[in-house]
Amino acid sequence: MADIHPSAIVYEGTVLGDNVRVLENAVVGKQPSLGASSTAKREPLPPTSIGDGTVISTGAIVFAGSSIGANCIVGDQSCIRERVELADNCILGRGSLIENDTTVGAGTRIQAEAYITAYSTLEDDVFIAPCVVTTNDNFMGRTEQRKALMKGPTIRRGARVGGGAIICPAVEVGEEAFVGAGAVVTKDVPARKVVVGSPARVLRDVNADELRENGG
Amino acid sequence: MADIHPSAIVYEGTVLGDNVRVLENAVVGKQPSLGASSTAKREPLPPTSIGDGTVISTGAIVFAGSSIGANCIVGDQSCIRERVELADNCILGRGSLIENDTTVGAGTRIQAEAYITAYSTLEDDVFIAPCVVTTNDNFMGRTEQRKALMKGPTIRRGARVGGGAIICPAVEVGEEAFVGAGAVVTKDVPARKVVVGSPARVLRDVNADELRENGG
Amino acid sequence: MADIHPSAIVYEGTVLGDNVRVLENAVVGKQPSLGASSTAKREPLPPTSIGDGTVISTGAIVFAGSSIGANCIVGDQSCIRERVELADNCILGRGSLIENDTTVGAGTRIQAEAYITAYSTLEDDVFIAPCVVTTNDNFMGRTEQRKALMKGPTIRRGARVGGGAIICPAVEVGEEAFVGAGAVVTKDVPARKVVVGSPARVLRDVNADELRENGG
Repeated sequence: MADIHPSAIVYEGTVLGDNVRVLENAVVGKQPSLGASSTAKREPLPPTSIGDGTVISTGAIVFAGSSIGANCIVGDQSCIRERVELADNCILGRGSLIENDTTVGAGTRIQAEAYITAYSTLEDDVFIAPCVVTTNDNFMGRTEQRKALMKGPTIRRGARVGGGAIICPAVEVGEEAFVGAGAVVTKDVPARKVVVGSPARVLRDVNADELRENGG
Repeated sequence: MADIHPSAIVYEGTVLGDNVRVLENAVVGKQPSLGASSTAKREPLPPTSIGDGTVISTGAIVFAGSSIGANCIVGDQSCIRERVELADNCILGRGSLIENDTTVGAGTRIQAEAYITAYSTLEDDVFIAPCVVTTNDNFMGRTEQRKALMKGPTIRRGARVGGGAIICPAVEVGEEAFVGAGAVVTKDVPARKVVVGSPARVLRDVNADELRENGG
Repeated sequence: MADIHPSAIVYEGTVLGDNVRVLENAVVGKQPSLGASSTAKREPLPPTSIGDGTVISTGAIVFAGSSIGANCIVGDQSCIRERVELADNCILGRGSLIENDTTVGAGTRIQAEAYITAYSTLEDDVFIAPCVVTTNDNFMGRTEQRKALMKGPTIRRGARVGGGAIICPAVEVGEEAFVGAGAVVTKDVPARKVVVGSPARVLRDVNADELRENGG
């Protein structure tokens, strides 16, 4: 049985697992509003499904057509757009946003006010610090042809991205890599390297004791 | 006829055009709350007007005394303060904020989580990427005299500002200029130039095929 | 007597001072939701108290176990977590977040969309510009042992931090220091100095007429 606060709105068809909680003023299963000139498809999206034990927190919004795993926390005032796949045991911080068509692996933590752009891939056990910015569009969407070139980042398993860092379009952050706070990442980050600065440059290897294979 | 969700609050006097939609938990026409020491005027602001076909999305707030054009999308969890003029066909992304006394031209797109400071001017067809920060106050408002020196940016027609870029007070970004992701813009950007870095420097001309006169 | 909008939710036990106002859709006194693997304590937190004349604005969330002073404005869509002590006459901007176990001195202003991390100390009369990012965790919380090393910033009396600046973990910003917009602050900032850049470096002294002892 799910526990839905009386002030929350859960749209018909939404599939809620056991012990799901939907807190005050949350809205789950909302269909997108398209602009008059949008070329996106206009059929209704399929319902949202929310896994066992997941909490949709106060004022959060989850769009239709997304799938949230078990034992996740979708933070206060956060937002998950359509066609997002969020695996089990993820945490999405307060005020953060995951845009459409994005995949997030198990155990990944996205902290407060972070911005995950559309068409992104985050693998398992990724850590995204507060206020991280990701981007997917080198042309900033002037024409429909260029929109076809949009590509979000790929953040590999166990990578960590520091507070306020900015990831440029289509960048890959390697396995267990570490991006320093405030870095502006303009090109791929090799696995297990620390990068810092604007533009980001490799500083050193990630310390061995921080690697997951060593219990880090 | 407007379509107002039962959970939305639309204050008396608000003028809603044809086919306006006000979604879940949105609040439209709210009067500002002034601090005990604020020197702002205390008369009630005039009602808000919302043009035909505009959508005020879930959890969004539009203050009294603002005017929103036709066929705009005011995104989920976004906020528009008092005395803002937003022209037709604008898009305001999820979680973004337009502060008071700001003018935004037709067709301008302000992406998610962007921050548009008070006393800003954005002309037509501007593109503001996610998480852009604008500022208006070199002294950070210590005294009332200095507040009189506050001045937001002027972003000219067709300019594009990249994700997480920071625009310093009173800076002008020229027509069709392009500011790279993460740039810290401390002085004016010439028309049709690309700037990048911290502090931002001119890198090159905008490619001719990206200019609006060439269909870009 | 407090003035609570019918759409607001104020949990039982919350102590509201005279002339407190709680605006549309605000939620006050909420208990935290813990993840399945969280090691945080699970007893209910004590009620929130809100001082005389304070306004909790539209869509804001204040957790249980925090104490808000008199004549504060807790901005629209903002959030204050548990065990936060906010002194009198503070302003918390729209969409900003103060994480748990943080102390904020009297007269401090935290502008829109700023992020104040857990275990931070902000003294009196601090100015935090819009979209400032603070951090508390050099390891990004991989293991519980490392979590014990988390430490937020200390921002001393009268310091000013510019728009979009990023403050690294455990950094101290000295009395009346000034951090430029977009700076990435990796080490302590001396009192009464101006720092700018990424990484931030001392540029000059704060102008004498901007110091509080000189009426600045």
